[in-house]
Amino acid sequence: MLAEHINPFLKAVSNTFSTMLQCEARRGKMTLASEARQKFPISGVIGLSGKAAGTVVINLSEEVALKGASAMLMMEMTELDADVLDAVGEIANMVAGQAKAELEEYELSVSLPNVITGEGHEVRFPSDAKPLAVAFDTDFGPLQLVVGLEAAREPASV
Amino acid sequence: MLAEHINPFLKAVSNTFSTMLQCEARRGKMTLASEARQKFPISGVIGLSGKAAGTVVINLSEEVALKGASAMLMMEMTELDADVLDAVGEIANMVAGQAKAELEEYELSVSLPNVITGEGHEVRFPSDAKPLAVAFDTDFGPLQLVVGLEAAREPASV
Repeated sequence: MLAEHINPFLKAVSNTFSTMLQCEARRGKMTLASEARQKFPISGVIGLSGKAAGTVVINLSEEVALKGASAMLMMEMTELDADVLDAVGEIANMVAGQAKAELEEYELSVSLPNVITGEGHEVRFPSDAKPLAVAFDTDFGPLQLVVGLEAAREPASV
Repeated sequence: MLAEHINPFLKAVSNTFSTMLQCEARRGKMTLASEARQKFPISGVIGLSGKAAGTVVINLSEEVALKGASAMLMMEMTELDADVLDAVGEIANMVAGQAKAELEEYELSVSLPNVITGEGHEVRFPSDAKPLAVAFDTDFGPLQLVVGLEAAREPASV
């Protein structure tokens, strides 16, 4: 993954949180995401494909998921129910959707968003993919964005 | 998801296992995948996007992951290391890649494959997506395929 490709995703996180959730998201440290274990128990995952292939993972604490869903649904959510998890998928969808608009040379489109739950779950990228992880501190609590984007790979023919 | 769209994925599982892994995969029961909890601790996940948006999840026991990776890498694998997890991602990639070739009217392309681990992890689809789950019994052990495919959705504009 090229470092210059991360910027549209960083802007998309800040924009999505400020515009959709009325919450400021301040960017923290960027690291190579070689450690697979997610920091937080909820991951919104969405695939990008076209002339490049990628995945965006937005990894949230329960607190950020509940507050984010509450802001999005305009009602206080206190349990990780289907509505909250749908909202987490929609946040991943918005981040990926905004970022792809800035990476138009790759003609990217987005997959269905999935939400992974489970303490200690890991979302692993292919060993050669070199995803980048960026910490954010938001008014709702901390989160982590992980993005991998590579030249499109074709499956081995069978 | 339309039931007729599942057939290319079912054929792709059987073909991938027989051709790449020299293993017969026999199709079992198909159900609506409303239960989010994965049966097995390892999930290869890959997104599809284009004129439709989808996700393919291939959910494997440790035994099937190890035997599948051993067949693919032509050496006996006994631990869930990075090579084995890469092989699981590659199996998901091959299944999605073959199926998309048969669904050419949707001009689908594939995201990066991700592999989710963690006992009791759940891979949730959006509440309105109605994914289908199909059990397979293979020479290596049981596995489950879950596929959701929908008209492409655009993220809310922000």
